[in-house]
Formats: sequence, structure tokens, C-alpha cells
Amino acid sequence: MLPHDHMPKAREELRRLVAIPSVSARGEKLVECAEAVRDLLVEAGFNTEIQPGEVGPFVVGEIGSGPLTVMIYNHYDVQPEDPVSLWHFPPFEMSERDGRWYGRGVADDKGEFISRLAGWRLFREQHPGPLPFKLIWLVDGEEEIGSPSLEAFLKRRFEGEAVDICWWEYGEIDASGRPIILCGFKGVMAVELRDRTARADLHSSLGAVFDNPLWRLAAATASLRDNSGRILVEGFYDAVRQASLSDRELAAAPPYSLDSLVEATGAQRLLDGVDAENFYNAINFEPCMNVNGFSGGYAGEGAKTVLPGEGAVKIDFRLVPDQDPQHIVALLRGHLDRHGFEDIELIVHDANVKPVRASTDHWFVQDAKELLEAHFGKSAIVQPSSPASGTAYPFVEQLGAEIVGLGITHHGAMLHSPDENIIIDQFARMIECSAAILARLSQRAIRMKGRSNPEQLPDGETP
Amino acid sequence: MLPHDHMPKAREELRRLVAIPSVSARGEKLVECAEAVRDLLVEAGFNTEIQPGEVGPFVVGEIGSGPLTVMIYNHYDVQPEDPVSLWHFPPFEMSERDGRWYGRGVADDKGEFISRLAGWRLFREQHPGPLPFKLIWLVDGEEEIGSPSLEAFLKRRFEGEAVDICWWEYGEIDASGRPIILCGFKGVMAVELRDRTARADLHSSLGAVFDNPLWRLAAATASLRDNSGRILVEGFYDAVRQASLSDRELAAAPPYSLDSLVEATGAQRLLDGVDAENFYNAINFEPCMNVNGFSGGYAGEGAKTVLPGEGAVKIDFRLVPDQDPQHIVALLRGHLDRHGFEDIELIVHDANVKPVRASTDHWFVQDAKELLEAHFGKSAIVQPSSPASGTAYPFVEQLGAEIVGLGITHHGAMLHSPDENIIIDQFARMIECSAAILARLSQRAIRMKGRSNPEQLPDGETP
Repeated sequence: MLPHDHMPKAREELRRLVAIPSVSARGEKLVECAEAVRDLLVEAGFNTEIQPGEVGPFVVGEIGSGPLTVMIYNHYDVQPEDPVSLWHFPPFEMSERDGRWYGRGVADDKGEFISRLAGWRLFREQHPGPLPFKLIWLVDGEEEIGSPSLEAFLKRRFEGEAVDICWWEYGEIDASGRPIILCGFKGVMAVELRDRTARADLHSSLGAVFDNPLWRLAAATASLRDNSGRILVEGFYDAVRQASLSDRELAAAPPYSLDSLVEATGAQRLLDGVDAENFYNAINFEPCMNVNGFSGGYAGEGAKTVLPGEGAVKIDFRLVPDQDPQHIVALLRGHLDRHGFEDIELIVHDANVKPVRASTDHWFVQDAKELLEAHFGKSAIVQPSSPASGTAYPFVEQLGAEIVGLGITHHGAMLHSPDENIIIDQFARMIECSAAILARLSQRAIRMKGRSNPEQLPDGETP
Repeated sequence: MLPHDHMPKAREELRRLVAIPSVSARGEKLVECAEAVRDLLVEAGFNTEIQPGEVGPFVVGEIGSGPLTVMIYNHYDVQPEDPVSLWHFPPFEMSERDGRWYGRGVADDKGEFISRLAGWRLFREQHPGPLPFKLIWLVDGEEEIGSPSLEAFLKRRFEGEAVDICWWEYGEIDASGRPIILCGFKGVMAVELRDRTARADLHSSLGAVFDNPLWRLAAATASLRDNSGRILVEGFYDAVRQASLSDRELAAAPPYSLDSLVEATGAQRLLDGVDAENFYNAINFEPCMNVNGFSGGYAGEGAKTVLPGEGAVKIDFRLVPDQDPQHIVALLRGHLDRHGFEDIELIVHDANVKPVRASTDHWFVQDAKELLEAHFGKSAIVQPSSPASGTAYPFVEQLGAEIVGLGITHHGAMLHSPDENIIIDQFARMIECSAAILARLSQRAIRMKGRSNPEQLPDGETP
């Protein structure tokens, strides 16, 4: 661990936040945690307010002004601690062992928040006086339940405002300690197909005459893609944005091997055509379809020769810019109808999370890369897109922000699981790195101010 | 109810048998019930023995000799009484209400057995003296658990014996009171396809690279048939025996309408190409495939975007003569391999129940039709095959018997369900009808004996 004056205070703050079981799924201790976050931001010099959410309130801190607006996004709510019996530590007390802190939220996202906040204080020690850019700190209380009121809140609270950069709630550190800068997230669309062919389950002998809902669902599901994972829904790929040259260069040089991914996941069967050369391209830029689960009929031990009366299959699609989940729902309905599956009901569980992708050669990404490498002592990875999804789209759509994720969620952090943890050394490094990033943002802002008309800079040009 | 001297004794015997909870699934009271059956057969004049089975013993009674051997097959074991709370009567006491008897086994199969036994006594009153044919009465104690030791028992006990006719354990009475003579049963093959593509469930974002076991199972399942229910496994139909002219004539004149079947089952979706003209043909002569259930991944409320590590689908095939379930298993494995599903494991739950079909114009079928019509006052239906299955094949294979089902299982009998029941009037009629059938068999046997070489009669010719 780096010696650092700011560490004892940061540790104590994180310990206090972890001790508040702010489980949004149960609506628990959200106001109490929001008030603790507000007090921290007030103490750190921010104009701070608490704004109502649907389940838990939002905390907003603002400071500074200038030609550049940066938003830091975090959340103070956490996942439930279940199953408690699998924890080796009390979930809501921060424990230390072998260079790690353990506890629910110690990484996701209270640890990310506190490392940045301590970095802010270090930066202010080194750079007191007026902040030459506008910094908005938004701390969500509903992230773990899908941020149901975020979009409406951003529209209401930030009407007409523009944000240049949104520093996303987390970033990753890979297994060998290399920081990963996430420049995008896939969208997601989660649906359920249901079919009912009879009032109740029937004797399977009647399958000579009557159709079988599970066969119909299997046939419909099979029709959606091929062995290579290519999705066969007409028009599905029409809106896919071509990756930029620099994105493609990054994807052509995977920071880890396919073998290591196979080893880490235990996955045994690649899609047809996926190989060591192209897998990272698929992870960054390819949409995909997943069958999440089937239900209906008999799924117990042995055989029961029943003709089910109804069935269902859950499917998700991971989408890439500029696919719109709502539009994909319409394409899927059209596909089912054209293929003779008009009887299959289409239920939409989620069609709100649109994909986003910032430019990997944005100056902030390049600055962050340089500073992460300096503070973590390893080459940083710029990843064009996470293969996973985040509710980042409202920040892009409402505020025009570029979303960039950098932080200290390491690959053994056990997010959402028992023994969630953070590596103390990485936490300490991120305090210093955050201070350096904020200092660099100040320099950028001062230079932008020095120019006559900084708003007309072409996209991606260094201000 | 017909007035009948044999009724009080038959009612009392059935009441005593129903009071013995001979549930083979729990291995309960099987010996006690076998002994009660043995006592009844001994009292009725049979040479009787109890032979060990795997779970419950077999009871065998024999009497008579001659050029004709007839076997009556019944079983004394019953299905469990669960769910008890849905019964309106105590399951193991015979209750009477509105012309019906209620209780577990009152129809399946203790009621069928006692009606025939009382018929035997009536016949013997009318026709004392030596029985001019050989009658074997076999009462199984394991039918409700799939008769696991029946095949081996028949081989052991009846080595080298030939049986002309096996009077099957039940027959049906339709909703309008017409007796149905069942001349065959479909076979059944029940399998499970399993696929595993990873050690555990993965984050569904990895679906861009790794395959999905539920998609693979859906694609494999979809490949097995088309929209019309036609099975696409190569060679599947090769062994299908062409129905005889009389079978086809019977199937062309359905005894009930497609509308009434739709009404009774609540099934809403016919297979492509099935209509009012051909549905009865499919029920009698077409094999079919059923998806019984899928498992794997998430099947709860709402969405969970998981990439399952493994999955399974249960499928049964109803088979027709002369398809062999074991051979169909091999064809199915070949189909999966040829279609790129070598990774899918094929687990066989049941491949023992082969299809059987007697000739609908056999003299015994014609005799039974005439006598059922005389005693039930309605035209009888000769049904070439039940759409369901029975473990009838060992009787055909070991003993060369023609299987014919006639009895009093009416369409509201609630077999295997709460409130199992039998219509008392039909029970009484079956006593008289059974006596008449046995008398007719005696006449046939006497005529056969009168000929020099009755064994050389062409198949189906009236002896």
C-alpha cells in the first residue's frame, strides 16, 4: 500500500458507508445512506442537495464553472447480502484481510465513490482556489434495481444542461493488475415468448393431433440465430454503427487471450467461427442473443409423458450502437409473424437500456490512460465496449455526455456475491490517480478558456 | 342397475379389495392384496399360485384345457391417493353416490377384475363341468409402476406356452355409453437431451463468444419434426406397418367428432394438416413426438439475463407397429450427430414399451362387439389402437397373444385422480357380458376341438 495521509480518513468513511445496509431491492436505509453521502460532499465543498427518486433519493453535488462540464456518477445503494451463509465476513462490517477490504458495497459502488472523493480532497489540497470547470457529482440510490427513475430525474434536474464527460460509476482492473478504461456498454433487451395451445396439460398421446407449445417455442427460438450466433431477425443489423479505425485496432489486439477467457469461465463451446483472432471483436462490437431459460411442462426427475398446455422462453439480446431496443422488439414481432409464429405472445421485460460507446481516442480517454499507467505501474487497456450493459444511455441522450469508466473493480471483486472485496493498494492508488485526473481536467479547462471559442473544436481534437 | 344375484357378492368383494391400499409406488400392502386375490381365484375354482415380482407378487390362476388358450390380465395394485384433499370420499373405503362407486382402484383395476370374476361365476353356474379351453388369469401387482418384472416373469413362468387371446386389463365406455374395444396400444420412447457448454451459468454478455446450451437444445428439438408433426428423423417411418383395410375403414369413420375432442380437452391448436376427416386416423395410426418439458437457466418471474451452463429437454415419442423403441433411439442419435449436435447427450428414460395391434377383424373382436352391444344396448366401437400406451408387448412377444381390451372404464372414471369412480350399472352389465363372452369362448373351443386340425385355420378365419 502506498503511504498516504488521505488513507485513514478514506478508510473510516468507507467503513461508515458499508455499515449502512442500503439495499435498494428492499428499500432499506436509503435515506440514511443518502444523507451520509450528502454530508461527505458538503464537507468536501460541494453545493449539495437531495432529490427524490422512486425508491431511494439522488444526491447531487456541484462545484466550479468553466468551459468544461464533468459529471462523476456513483451509487450508494447495494445488492442484497444473500446468501449470508456463504460470506466469510459480516456483510455490513468492513473487514480487512490479506490486503483486501471485505463487505457489501466495499467495491460496488461505495469503494469507487470514496476513492474518488478522497482523490478530490487531495486534488483540492494541491489546487485550492476556484475550480476552472464545472463538476457535478451524482450519486444514485437505485442503481442495483435498474435506476427506474434516473432518466426522468436527469430530464427534470438537468434540463438544457450539457455535460462533456461522464466518469462512470466503475472501471475495472484485470487479473494482472492492468487498469481497463471502459468506453462503452452494450444495450440490452429482455423478452419472454409465451405460447398456449390448450387449457391445461394433456396426455401426450394427443400429440398426434394437437400442437405442442414447447416445440413451437423451440422452433421459434431456433429460428432467431444460426450456429455462429448470427441473428436472423430481418433488419437486426441495419442500425449497427461501424466501429472507428482506432476501435478496430484496439479490438484486433486483445488484452487477454481466448484461452484465458475459456479458463476463467469454464465455457467449453465457442460459437462457430469464433477464434483467438476475432473473439475480442465480438466481445466489443457484436450484438448477441441469449436463451436465458425455458419453462412449461415437466422438468423433474425421470420421464413424464405430458403434452404441456403452455410454455415460455426468456431471451435477451445484447445490442450495440445504434441499435434501439424498442425497434428490435418490433423487428422480433415481425420475424415471429413472418415465420408462422403469430400465436406466440411477446412479452417485453426490458427494452430501455440502449447501447452507448464513447470515442476511444477522445482526449479524456488518452489522459486517463496516461495517468492510470503512471499510478498503477502497468499499461492500461482501452476497451471500446464492455460486453455487459449499464444504464448509461440517459446521460448520452439527455446530457450529450461521453461515458468513460475507470476505477478499481478488480476481477476477483465478487460483485453482487458473498465476500465482495476491494484491494487496498488499488484503492490507495486510485486516490492519487483521481487527484491527478482532476488536476488534468483543470489544466484542460484553463487551456480551453484561453482560446477564443473553444466550443467549436472538432470532436476528438485536443483542447 | 340390472337386477342380478351376483351383484351383492361382487360389491362386497370390490369393497374389500378397495379397502386394501395396495399402492405399488410405495410398495404398500401388496402381499396382503395378492393373497386376497388368490383367495378369490381359489374360491372361483382356479389352480392358483403366488409368484414373486420385483415389488409386488403376481397371482396366477389356471383352469381348463382345450384347443384355445385365453389369458385374462388384470392388476391389483393402485396409484397413490394424492392429493387426498381433493377427494370428496375416503380413498380407501368404497362409497356409493348417484349410481357410482368411488374409491382408489374402484375402476383401475379392481373394478374391472371383480366384474370379470363375478361374470366367471355366473358363467360357471350356467355352464358347469370341464372348461373346454384353457383360461389363465394373471393379476399383476406392479402395473402402476410400469410392470418392471412382467417381461421376465412371463418368460420364466410361461416358457414355451402359447396364448391365443389376452383380454386386456381394461376397456373403455365412451361419454354416450358406447363400449370401446381397444385392439392395440402405441409404444412409447421417453428420452432426455442434455447439453452442457460451461461449468456454471455465465453472464449473458459472454453469449457473443460462447454458445448457449438452451439454444442448441431448442435447435435440436426443432429439427426433429415439422409444423405438421411429421417426424424428420431419417428412417423413423421405415418400420411402420400399413394398417389393414378394415382398420382403415374404422379410422375413416370416427366414433366422435374432432369438435368434441377439442371441446373435451380444451386444446386450441391442431397440427398443420389435421382436420375433422383425418384426425382419427392420426390418433390410431400415427406416431408422434412430444416435448414434455425444458429445464436450465432462469425460469422465474421477470428477466434474468443469464447464459446457462447447461440445459435439458424431455421428449417422448408415441410409436406404432412395428417401430422398435430401441431402434428409434439409435436413429435419434444418428439424427443428432448428422445435424451437428454431437455434443448433445441422449439419455433414455424408457425404450421398453413396444407398440402392439391386434387384427380388428379377429373373431374374438367380432364376438366381443356383438355381445357388448347386446348387454350395453349401444353400438360398440372397435378402435384399432388406443393413442396411449400399455405394457402389452411382452404378451405378444413371449406368448403370441392378440391383445384385446374391453371393460368398463368410463370417460369420467378419474383414473389416477381424486374421486376415481365406476358406474354401477355398467359394472352389473359387465358381469353378464363377461359370462356371455366366456360362454362364447367355450362354444368356439368346442367347435375347434370338433375339427381335425384347428391350428391350421388361416389367421382371422372363424373357427
